[in-house]
Amino acid sequence: MSIEAAKRYAEEHFDDFLDDLKQLLRIPSVSADPRHREDMQRAAEFVRDRLAAAGVETRLVATDGFPIVYGERLRSDDRPTALVYGHYDVQPPDPVDQWVSPPFEPVVREGCVWARGATDDKGQLFTHIAAVHSWTTAAGELPVNVKFVIEGEEEVGSRSLETFLQDNRELLSADVAVVSDTSQYGDGIPAITYGLRGITACEVTVRGPRQDLHSGVFGGAVANPANVLARLIGSLVGPDGRIAVSGFYDAVRPIGEEERRRLAALPFDEQAFLREVGVPASFGEPEFSILERRWCRPSCDVNGLVSGYTGEGPKTIIPQSAVAKVSFRLVPDQDPDAVLDAVERHLRERCPPAVTLQFRRYHGCPGVVIDTDSAFMQAARRAIRAGFGADPVLIREGGSIPVVASFRAILGVDTLLLGWGRNSDNLHAPNEHFHLDDFRHGMLASVALWDELARCGRQRRQSATDIA
Amino acid sequence: MSIEAAKRYAEEHFDDFLDDLKQLLRIPSVSADPRHREDMQRAAEFVRDRLAAAGVETRLVATDGFPIVYGERLRSDDRPTALVYGHYDVQPPDPVDQWVSPPFEPVVREGCVWARGATDDKGQLFTHIAAVHSWTTAAGELPVNVKFVIEGEEEVGSRSLETFLQDNRELLSADVAVVSDTSQYGDGIPAITYGLRGITACEVTVRGPRQDLHSGVFGGAVANPANVLARLIGSLVGPDGRIAVSGFYDAVRPIGEEERRRLAALPFDEQAFLREVGVPASFGEPEFSILERRWCRPSCDVNGLVSGYTGEGPKTIIPQSAVAKVSFRLVPDQDPDAVLDAVERHLRERCPPAVTLQFRRYHGCPGVVIDTDSAFMQAARRAIRAGFGADPVLIREGGSIPVVASFRAILGVDTLLLGWGRNSDNLHAPNEHFHLDDFRHGMLASVALWDELARCGRQRRQSATDIA
Repeated sequence: MSIEAAKRYAEEHFDDFLDDLKQLLRIPSVSADPRHREDMQRAAEFVRDRLAAAGVETRLVATDGFPIVYGERLRSDDRPTALVYGHYDVQPPDPVDQWVSPPFEPVVREGCVWARGATDDKGQLFTHIAAVHSWTTAAGELPVNVKFVIEGEEEVGSRSLETFLQDNRELLSADVAVVSDTSQYGDGIPAITYGLRGITACEVTVRGPRQDLHSGVFGGAVANPANVLARLIGSLVGPDGRIAVSGFYDAVRPIGEEERRRLAALPFDEQAFLREVGVPASFGEPEFSILERRWCRPSCDVNGLVSGYTGEGPKTIIPQSAVAKVSFRLVPDQDPDAVLDAVERHLRERCPPAVTLQFRRYHGCPGVVIDTDSAFMQAARRAIRAGFGADPVLIREGGSIPVVASFRAILGVDTLLLGWGRNSDNLHAPNEHFHLDDFRHGMLASVALWDELARCGRQRRQSATDIA
Repeated sequence: MSIEAAKRYAEEHFDDFLDDLKQLLRIPSVSADPRHREDMQRAAEFVRDRLAAAGVETRLVATDGFPIVYGERLRSDDRPTALVYGHYDVQPPDPVDQWVSPPFEPVVREGCVWARGATDDKGQLFTHIAAVHSWTTAAGELPVNVKFVIEGEEEVGSRSLETFLQDNRELLSADVAVVSDTSQYGDGIPAITYGLRGITACEVTVRGPRQDLHSGVFGGAVANPANVLARLIGSLVGPDGRIAVSGFYDAVRPIGEEERRRLAALPFDEQAFLREVGVPASFGEPEFSILERRWCRPSCDVNGLVSGYTGEGPKTIIPQSAVAKVSFRLVPDQDPDAVLDAVERHLRERCPPAVTLQFRRYHGCPGVVIDTDSAFMQAARRAIRAGFGADPVLIREGGSIPVVASFRAILGVDTLLLGWGRNSDNLHAPNEHFHLDDFRHGMLASVALWDELARCGRQRRQSATDIA
């Protein structure tokens, strides 16, 4: 059986794959830091060469930013095509002095490999390269068609990716996308993430007098932009955590009873959650559980406020302006633009004529939920069971991964979010690491995944039930 | 008649007094700037010596900050005692490049003397020194007892003054205080300011999670300190400009019908006011005029807001904390501490248990209104008519001059606020100036004032109707 050969190869060559990963981890591909421009190119070339060694036809695609590594190994039009996404760029390593070992000198200790990018996303991405390598080397062929899109701008906003997707719809056509850039639900609890919240954001500026005014001379007769802003922004969310913008919930897809039961069955320790966050009590819509509030319900958060005097002590002015940055997490079937329309209307209706209001819109993306009963999802569950020796739980995430919405909107393809990492892996923090067990299990799950997907046959677009 | 001699002396020696003032204006006594420490000492010594030359027994009183110039010329216990207050420190001259002539090189042009401190307060203060000098030189005596308290920290919060007053109640005992540190109502409209608003201020900090959180992972389940702060602060003032804090208006002294008629009779161009401020409409309690809102009604202004991310573009965090600075202008008979108590109660009642609220209190002072019918007030009106050739209007000011509240609270003495300057004199701005006409008229009004006060006889404490 060829899957057994691929699996054996992956097991037997684990140390080689780990050595390869360590080579990639040694390249400080920090996309946010212009001093690492050459390292970015080196990392892209390393990934290209490593993919080529795995038997994938590969090339670098130049962009306005960092190159995208594109690869494909196509077996047959009769078989499904998987589009694997990952990123070779990493977060800055700061604060460097808090690392136990240097961020770009990967070492193995305590059963983990420690380095910036170990889990996010070089290590997780590498499981798929190693799995393809194992198949092509040990079995001579892959059971499915695979395409790889590996970008270098994920940590800085993926600016070049959308253009690349728009310009290459045919090239990238696929039945399903596979992304390993999320986490397991908990230690020993692998997970498939079937839902992500969307996001939209705005900046609200209230302008009053030509310049800061003396609050003694003018207070009470001139509208204070900071008072007005506080009143406007404070009116967005009620004391019960419900967003008070008219029409805001109109398009929100309710949580089904079955899903509620499933989420309620997930292990969740509220006291531990509050301790970890460092707050005395939770907050939010009382009729929903904490997981539901974080995953399945929209939210409104003020991300920043600034006005007037912010130094030490008092300064009695009426500030000339006040600014708030506000973002909204969205769920299906909310439309980011329609949400901002409603928010702008809400604010303008309440804004007194004695000030002017400026409403600046940021780019957003819709929330995504994929069908948990689809054939590909069942395939992924079996693959994870094979790789991790445990059934995955089905979870959603409160954050947004814009590429998932873009895959759906531009390519019409749903994404399997198969996270091998752990929330405790210190991604985006000092001492990032990746458990060798997770590396091994993820690789074996990926080996199994290509086989399981092949059994599904062509499902093109059939699971894309939620195209926005 | 000795007043005629004093008046003639003042007129004939106008140029000498102007030269003296220019000497004082040449000393850059910027209290806020440590580089001018020696200049502060020089300015204090200059004022001391100039007072001594006017026949006033004078000394410097060391403080924790800059010296206070104390002087007295006591004639007789049977006569009233006037306590003249002023300050020899000035605002920083920045931005220096916007001055037409250098800020500490006084020049006369367009009928004004131009220099930092020309009107605030060296020029105005100097009218009283010159008037005393004219009396003592030309008439051999003053008709009243005078005491001088001239501080060097007015522009930086008068920190040393209150201690000095507390420690020297007997030394400073007086029937009335005289301060020329305000403005006329308009060009050609001299004024006596009989009311000032008080002030109190606080800093409100809402604290949530231990650190900034990812708004995707936690949004909707963790209280956002910036949302909460906006809601709390936005609840302080209603859309009609009325302060929504329970009990806030309980102690507010109503404006009498006669006073409303008097204020309504003052020339006031609302359109010009809005143009000057640069706002499309006025704001505030609809049942009060703009002057009443600014002078006779309390107000609540957010002076500063800061939370989370305030740079360019979006950053989707839940900030760990949010801070607002809020100040209240007060009117008689509001008590600053009681107001802060009510505000703190208002905020705590509305603060959800999922965050913590910190309420920091700043020092305040009550509002002051003095009896416009008192004998000293009548004396001042006659003196201004003599000096300026026009009847003064009676006005209030929306700002706070803490020394006036301190004179009342500590010394039990009311203050005559006799402003010789103009609001257009650019105090606290580049190109500060003082009209030579105002310098001359102020000096002559001061010459007349000592004579008019003497006619009142001893009135000690009789006009202090509003001691808090």
